[in-house]
Amino acid sequence: MRATNRHLSHVRIVGAGLIGSSIGLALRAQDISVTMVDSNPSSQALAQDLMGDQDLSKEINLVVLATPPAELASVLLNEFHQNPNATFIDVASVKNKVLLEIEASELPRELFMATHPMAGREVGGAKSARADLFQGRIWSYDPIGAGQRAIEQGLALIELCGASAYEIASRDHDQAVALVSHLPQLIASILAGQLDGRAGERALDLAGAGLRDTTRIAASSPELWSDILSSNSAALKPLLESLAQDLKELIERLEDEPFLTQFIEKGNRGRAAIPGKHGGAARSYSYLAVVIDDKPGQLAALFDECALAGVNVEDLTIEHSPEQSTGLITLALSAVDAEKLSIHLQAAQWKVHTPQ
Amino acid sequence: MRATNRHLSHVRIVGAGLIGSSIGLALRAQDISVTMVDSNPSSQALAQDLMGDQDLSKEINLVVLATPPAELASVLLNEFHQNPNATFIDVASVKNKVLLEIEASELPRELFMATHPMAGREVGGAKSARADLFQGRIWSYDPIGAGQRAIEQGLALIELCGASAYEIASRDHDQAVALVSHLPQLIASILAGQLDGRAGERALDLAGAGLRDTTRIAASSPELWSDILSSNSAALKPLLESLAQDLKELIERLEDEPFLTQFIEKGNRGRAAIPGKHGGAARSYSYLAVVIDDKPGQLAALFDECALAGVNVEDLTIEHSPEQSTGLITLALSAVDAEKLSIHLQAAQWKVHTPQ
Repeated sequence: MRATNRHLSHVRIVGAGLIGSSIGLALRAQDISVTMVDSNPSSQALAQDLMGDQDLSKEINLVVLATPPAELASVLLNEFHQNPNATFIDVASVKNKVLLEIEASELPRELFMATHPMAGREVGGAKSARADLFQGRIWSYDPIGAGQRAIEQGLALIELCGASAYEIASRDHDQAVALVSHLPQLIASILAGQLDGRAGERALDLAGAGLRDTTRIAASSPELWSDILSSNSAALKPLLESLAQDLKELIERLEDEPFLTQFIEKGNRGRAAIPGKHGGAARSYSYLAVVIDDKPGQLAALFDECALAGVNVEDLTIEHSPEQSTGLITLALSAVDAEKLSIHLQAAQWKVHTPQ
Repeated sequence: MRATNRHLSHVRIVGAGLIGSSIGLALRAQDISVTMVDSNPSSQALAQDLMGDQDLSKEINLVVLATPPAELASVLLNEFHQNPNATFIDVASVKNKVLLEIEASELPRELFMATHPMAGREVGGAKSARADLFQGRIWSYDPIGAGQRAIEQGLALIELCGASAYEIASRDHDQAVALVSHLPQLIASILAGQLDGRAGERALDLAGAGLRDTTRIAASSPELWSDILSSNSAALKPLLESLAQDLKELIERLEDEPFLTQFIEKGNRGRAAIPGKHGGAARSYSYLAVVIDDKPGQLAALFDECALAGVNVEDLTIEHSPEQSTGLITLALSAVDAEKLSIHLQAAQWKVHTPQ
């Protein structure tokens, strides 16, 4: 079904943190009225201010629960009593526990749909909110138990936020996020934890981008994450045990170069299993590297050649830095198109290379 | 001492990988002649092409050894025989082992200085090289044993690459990189290794930026890293054992919320101990986000507009997800060009956003 904003004119968002406020901003960008609610009055005031001037007189169609998971069921029931004509979605990171609580409450089940946007930042609060936080991201939802209106309005909101709706049963969702979200959080925290107490040591002066990226999410909120992690401990435990086993073997074989090669190769394969930034299973692109001069119009000229050759460029990267007189464009194409373009560009005197 | 490029007119770089080629590009940006050498002829040809047109008739002042550490001592001796008037530096990640080999060779010790730039990428080869790879990064060096000319020329190269020279004894260096570079590499690899064999599973569709950042360096070269890690196993082992102990406790207390809060807080403190969170010198780009339809020719049309507007695109990223009918292109430009392009694209009815 195609969802459009005809379903939504006024959305009430309970919880003015990063996720709630970012949803609000995304909706405001589409001119939908947004009421922000938070148990903390100053958070609520900031978030409501961020929403700008608007008409709040229309009836509320949809209530988004963006509160900490532990408070969700009780807040939801209270919201239902205040807005009996609305439908409801949550955005909690762990679904099974929340659904059990909601199913045990007096809320008519069909009014509620469970959802979870796969987006976040290591910084929190309305102050870090961005209208494009969900742009191009996966936003999972579980239609099981939800009525048609809750599904339509939930999907309308996901589309308005620029995200891609992704249907997945809550049980499968919780297993999936244990692997792709909660395990990386714990590992980033445990790695960063090894640096605790070492601030100011000379060793840390040598820290580069590898350490920074690997520990970025270790800056996340302790309150939020202790709640999430303990709610999903059953799914997490076997994953951590498997990792601990691999770590034990690594420690034993740290001087064994062939083992280390295989160990890094295993990580290469795991990394490659993550769908690219384009999502979907890894596509088998061929790559062509083209050295261009650093002057305006070179990229456009290159794309004109692609059009002349009749090939479709699937992706590209530019390697270039200030004061560098050349740039390197790597084009991703189908194998057939790469071959065709390579011949075409060489004939036209471009500097083409097939990367090793 | 202040090093300037009067010391260097022609630099020979042996090893046309990421580091060697990036050094070459940085030197070319300062109009220093660069000869690229590689045992692989196609790597050498691409790297030399990237260096652009130049005069290679001047005598070689400095030879940079950017080969795998295992080959370093033998390549160095060969280079000394070919260039007896030059000085020599290496860029290897582990210093003690290399120094022992060099000290045992016939190379006059004073001609050599050990150095190590704290920069890299998970992608390798000349195709990934950038002139600004070292901009604002720490580049460690150990003057012990080196003569005045090797020190001056080595420091001149570090300065020309835009890096900050950082004096540290090789033994301390190896301890430091075990913590800030080799441990994160192993942890990223072990985490990514948990995904091995799961390619195509639905769980991975939910992967977000946290997993991607945490495992980015898991894509690194197995050959390079097995060499580095085994060379530094003595410094690494106690660090891994401490981490394994923390992991064991975590597994035992996974349902203990107060413990989890403290655990995440410890990671917060460790993360905060890393100096200069933003890493490297901030590039002063402005960013424009453009939402495009996902159909062939859109990127070419966008670059045609850039050419029409007379602006130079410094970098770009593409965010796009499966079943999404739009893509988000983020262009990096100078502030002036971003302003110019934004006005131009809006007038031409493109969907342009200035990211918050």
